[in-house]
Amino acid sequence: MKEFLNEDFLLESEVARVLYHDYVADLPIIDYHNHLTPKDIANDKVFSNLTEAWLEGDHYKWRAMRANGVDEVFCTGEALPRDKFIKWSETVPYTMRNPLYHWTHLELQRYFGITELLNGETADYIYENANAQLESLSIGQMLSKMKVEVVSTTDDPIDTLEHHMAWNEMGESMILVPTFRADKVLLVKDVPQWNYYVDRLELQANQPIRSFDELMGALQARHDFFDELGCRLSDNGLDRIYAEDYSATDIEAIFNSLRRGRAVTGYESDQLRSALLHELAKMHHAKGWTQQYHLGALRNNSSRMMRRLGPDTGFDSMGDFQQAEGLGRFLDRLDSTDQLAKTVIYNLNPVQNEVFATMAGNFNDGSIAGKMQFGTGWWFMDQKDGMERQMNALSNMGLISRFVGMLTDSRSFMSFPRHEYFRRILCNIFGKDIENGELPHDVKWIGKLVQDISYYNAKDFFKFSHVSRPFPIQE
Amino acid sequence: MKEFLNEDFLLESEVARVLYHDYVADLPIIDYHNHLTPKDIANDKVFSNLTEAWLEGDHYKWRAMRANGVDEVFCTGEALPRDKFIKWSETVPYTMRNPLYHWTHLELQRYFGITELLNGETADYIYENANAQLESLSIGQMLSKMKVEVVSTTDDPIDTLEHHMAWNEMGESMILVPTFRADKVLLVKDVPQWNYYVDRLELQANQPIRSFDELMGALQARHDFFDELGCRLSDNGLDRIYAEDYSATDIEAIFNSLRRGRAVTGYESDQLRSALLHELAKMHHAKGWTQQYHLGALRNNSSRMMRRLGPDTGFDSMGDFQQAEGLGRFLDRLDSTDQLAKTVIYNLNPVQNEVFATMAGNFNDGSIAGKMQFGTGWWFMDQKDGMERQMNALSNMGLISRFVGMLTDSRSFMSFPRHEYFRRILCNIFGKDIENGELPHDVKWIGKLVQDISYYNAKDFFKFSHVSRPFPIQE
Amino acid sequence: MKEFLNEDFLLESEVARVLYHDYVADLPIIDYHNHLTPKDIANDKVFSNLTEAWLEGDHYKWRAMRANGVDEVFCTGEALPRDKFIKWSETVPYTMRNPLYHWTHLELQRYFGITELLNGETADYIYENANAQLESLSIGQMLSKMKVEVVSTTDDPIDTLEHHMAWNEMGESMILVPTFRADKVLLVKDVPQWNYYVDRLELQANQPIRSFDELMGALQARHDFFDELGCRLSDNGLDRIYAEDYSATDIEAIFNSLRRGRAVTGYESDQLRSALLHELAKMHHAKGWTQQYHLGALRNNSSRMMRRLGPDTGFDSMGDFQQAEGLGRFLDRLDSTDQLAKTVIYNLNPVQNEVFATMAGNFNDGSIAGKMQFGTGWWFMDQKDGMERQMNALSNMGLISRFVGMLTDSRSFMSFPRHEYFRRILCNIFGKDIENGELPHDVKWIGKLVQDISYYNAKDFFKFSHVSRPFPIQE
Repeated sequence: MKEFLNEDFLLESEVARVLYHDYVADLPIIDYHNHLTPKDIANDKVFSNLTEAWLEGDHYKWRAMRANGVDEVFCTGEALPRDKFIKWSETVPYTMRNPLYHWTHLELQRYFGITELLNGETADYIYENANAQLESLSIGQMLSKMKVEVVSTTDDPIDTLEHHMAWNEMGESMILVPTFRADKVLLVKDVPQWNYYVDRLELQANQPIRSFDELMGALQARHDFFDELGCRLSDNGLDRIYAEDYSATDIEAIFNSLRRGRAVTGYESDQLRSALLHELAKMHHAKGWTQQYHLGALRNNSSRMMRRLGPDTGFDSMGDFQQAEGLGRFLDRLDSTDQLAKTVIYNLNPVQNEVFATMAGNFNDGSIAGKMQFGTGWWFMDQKDGMERQMNALSNMGLISRFVGMLTDSRSFMSFPRHEYFRRILCNIFGKDIENGELPHDVKWIGKLVQDISYYNAKDFFKFSHVSRPFPIQE
Repeated sequence: MKEFLNEDFLLESEVARVLYHDYVADLPIIDYHNHLTPKDIANDKVFSNLTEAWLEGDHYKWRAMRANGVDEVFCTGEALPRDKFIKWSETVPYTMRNPLYHWTHLELQRYFGITELLNGETADYIYENANAQLESLSIGQMLSKMKVEVVSTTDDPIDTLEHHMAWNEMGESMILVPTFRADKVLLVKDVPQWNYYVDRLELQANQPIRSFDELMGALQARHDFFDELGCRLSDNGLDRIYAEDYSATDIEAIFNSLRRGRAVTGYESDQLRSALLHELAKMHHAKGWTQQYHLGALRNNSSRMMRRLGPDTGFDSMGDFQQAEGLGRFLDRLDSTDQLAKTVIYNLNPVQNEVFATMAGNFNDGSIAGKMQFGTGWWFMDQKDGMERQMNALSNMGLISRFVGMLTDSRSFMSFPRHEYFRRILCNIFGKDIENGELPHDVKWIGKLVQDISYYNAKDFFKFSHVSRPFPIQE
Repeated sequence: MKEFLNEDFLLESEVARVLYHDYVADLPIIDYHNHLTPKDIANDKVFSNLTEAWLEGDHYKWRAMRANGVDEVFCTGEALPRDKFIKWSETVPYTMRNPLYHWTHLELQRYFGITELLNGETADYIYENANAQLESLSIGQMLSKMKVEVVSTTDDPIDTLEHHMAWNEMGESMILVPTFRADKVLLVKDVPQWNYYVDRLELQANQPIRSFDELMGALQARHDFFDELGCRLSDNGLDRIYAEDYSATDIEAIFNSLRRGRAVTGYESDQLRSALLHELAKMHHAKGWTQQYHLGALRNNSSRMMRRLGPDTGFDSMGDFQQAEGLGRFLDRLDSTDQLAKTVIYNLNPVQNEVFATMAGNFNDGSIAGKMQFGTGWWFMDQKDGMERQMNALSNMGLISRFVGMLTDSRSFMSFPRHEYFRRILCNIFGKDIENGELPHDVKWIGKLVQDISYYNAKDFFKFSHVSRPFPIQE
């Protein structure tokens, strides 16, 4: 019997242990997609207690607490930090077999050296112990402890990026760059909200938006600005991709209706979204960026809780949308004019693993290795079973050797051990195949492959770099 | 090499064996969903032979026999019981790796102590041996031997429930209660059949049904009656959930058309079903019942055999319907007025496991632990692989610790060893994680969890009880 | 640690090794579905080098090379054979965990006795070694070395089958028969192309096609001709099955429009396809053939590469079409008039495994064992994980004992070791269950089952035979 969460956690064979400890354990982290707050990084924030560091904003934990019968006051409500922590601690033993159980104890070990199991009885001790350590563990120290080399946050085109700029001026060794995520400009259902957004975009881009072309011009201006700050990736989070047919005339008419405050039909919305996504994708290609698409979420299912708490509070789930045809059409349009950027496609519903893995394979053109990426297990699938399924699908239908690997996708500065978690699972998969005689016992070569997947592929693929001429805040 | 079906069947680690034998093997059974015949229970029926006990009404076995090239006369036809048994016995060795192979031998062992493998050569001996034992093994004795504490049958709102009442008067220790399954009132495609059903409902509820409100009133009367007899659960078996928009005026018009014998459009049918399901769900909530939804079957695929044998004869399969959006809308409408009952959602197609597991998680509100349940592997998925997949999805996307566990869903009094089967698989899953160091070696706590999942969660969740004032047949 | 690809490759237990080596390793091969070129067989072609034998026409390898950043000139382009081979060899180490890695080394071992691993360094030696051996290893010798007993190629109704006839006249022991694949007659979107095809069918069938009935008459003539040449199978490769409602009048009108060069609507196309598929299926039944349906591909996703290279060049992927209802309706229509032939249904997307396995089970009628077959893992799923998933779904939802097993579906004469690969996986699956006590330790019976699945079921099911009266080329 193996001890829980010891140094060989998740490593089931001797060769897996060698691959992990000797090849990948010490590699730095390129976290090319997350939702960390740049302001907190630039300000080197210090958390006042473990509740703030762990439970504020973590809808995974809230969801588990609600499922465990804990009242909302202890999740997102007004309860005291200590009381919230106690409720969470009492829930932890009930999360066994959920990734939260592993994450929780990995984070306690890696950030604080705490090896006790969290539960109602140990809650007080662990709370005090961690809080004491947090006083001298700022966000910068956390990132450094975790060997984070790159943080690529997720930002709206109208964001000022002031904290990214401030960071650049500090001359820190860690690279902090934005990701261009133009999702709000696609949300045309609420017409006043959309116009309010476009008005703000006008201001931020400092140019009028009276036509679709001007809209794209303003987005291009922001795109250029992001690029100057080292941005190497875009992202879109969508239920499904939009790839309807449309003409310039269609789009202009739809734009004009919306801009005058008039609602458009569902099909017209889809046409406009199709045009926006296509035009944005061409910009990404022109810049040599990598474009990401996160597809398949069904969001805000509880309208009651949406009204009360807003989005991203634990009421999202997986959709079962059909994805293949639209995605194929979207990528083909770009490919047919040779304007398809490097691309990572992520699916929320694991039943789409094989569709996404094979779809990516359709558009590799030999220009660079691994141009089309099937992204790592996302959100609900960001756990051992989900990662294994993604890696097995990718292996069987593509080249896992060229995989750019893990990202946290997280709002929490405590979530970096998920890279370790991923690397252990990765090494275990290869180790098992070697043990079984399904791969040759070539530890040197396979050691190189797991290093590539853990770090070097991402490094070579995204090409993050320090912004050579730090962009002054008031230019 | 392990002996087939010995006492450590399906238990692959020492800790799994401890969890099973020391913690859950002896717990009673709460069979909260099945299709057993209450009349046979109330009458304490004795089967005349193993063919009657095993092969009458078991479409799983018929399906396997047909696939094995056995003529229909030996499945549902007029062949002699012994000859049917021989044909089944000859088929058994060809069912290896199908759950029927395990079920068959588990049932022979647990009910009759027969450890020989069934095949053409052993058929005669086993038939005689089991038949002799069946003479003194009534249904009551079977249930008692299996430690069945609760049987919740599946009943139409117009059922008289006379056998449930008779049972209550006997003062037996086993609890026998009905489940309210209002499926026929949703079947509006065959208008004369629907009206015939509504007429019978009028009679049974003893009130006229001239409007949709009166229809709901009659259903409410029957709902009250079921509740008085200890009913704690509702059920609906549907291809998918119906959650269309509708107004009271729409529904009244649709009702009036149907009641006058006029067909309605597909969309109108969906609207009526949506209204019925929504109104019924509010009744379930008001009573504190748990509502069940079994979604995703594609039934009666062979119209030739449907004409010849009727439904539930082995010609059903899985659909690949889209489920997420409709299910989300349905649950949200109830949740938004705080009228969402405790709920168990079951999916037939395992590709929906993750959708169902995450959808359930959207509507936990902290009121009670495990309010929203993703139900155990159903029908075709009620086997080792299916159970493991359901439990893994539930673990990864929710809290398996709060799972209400197994039910037989069966028409057969011989099927109770499936609870044992489930418990072994459950203990094996937890045992494997402990062995691998993925869970702490805390047998006491995990022993409690597997006990909860095997028995106590269901006990606490459904709150079955003896009907305190037995309801007289002629009040 | 097990040596890579040794004699016990993929056999993880002692009993699996016994099952494989003692029961199935030496059985002949019935390759009942492939895309081999009959001309090459009839002419006993000799390959000039390993590039020709391996890389010409193998879109699996091209796809991997493109994903590895190899320019198209080395895939389908004008590069020299040796240079193409070098590029492929350099890619091979990057294909680890993809089936190509196993296939490549199995093929080197089985055809050439080469046990070195292929990579950039060994490329030259292996190229020379294999090329030298290829001089005296004709296609006939390859087939004989692999114990191939039957090859059933894939042929269009208008094919002359001249090479099949020539083969018959040679009196060889291997059976070479055609498969009737009437796909082009379904392609009505390109109306001129369709008419061109129908014109050629007129010529080949030597009868005018002025009505739908005459179209079916011409197809019937070709069907008869295929049958005389020993054809035992049909096939259709479709995104999904077509089973719309239609009348004879509808079909005649649609046919007339098309034949006069006028486009028809999407729905009309679907109606015509429905009629064609239904009428063809009745022919298959009348002949006692087995009909195959390969469903779910989304083809030619890259329109740029389609224009450049044509179809089947590595730009196809999986669709996520809904399959259940259409497939059920199609099979039911045939079953309801007792004209449902023996059938094998294959799905490309593994999420449909359970739908296909259960759908097949709806139409077994007891006439022969295993009448309705859920086919083996196809294309992207023709790998260890895919085969295991197909066999597990089939086991759990049907009778794997009656499974007709493996086929290569390949364009390559080097791909026959995939039968060995399948057999090893099959024996390993059964062996593991015996080891775990989930099946009895009855090696004799289970040995018979794996023999049946590897060879005898296909032999008994398809009933291939030498054409008794070889059909003269010029009769």
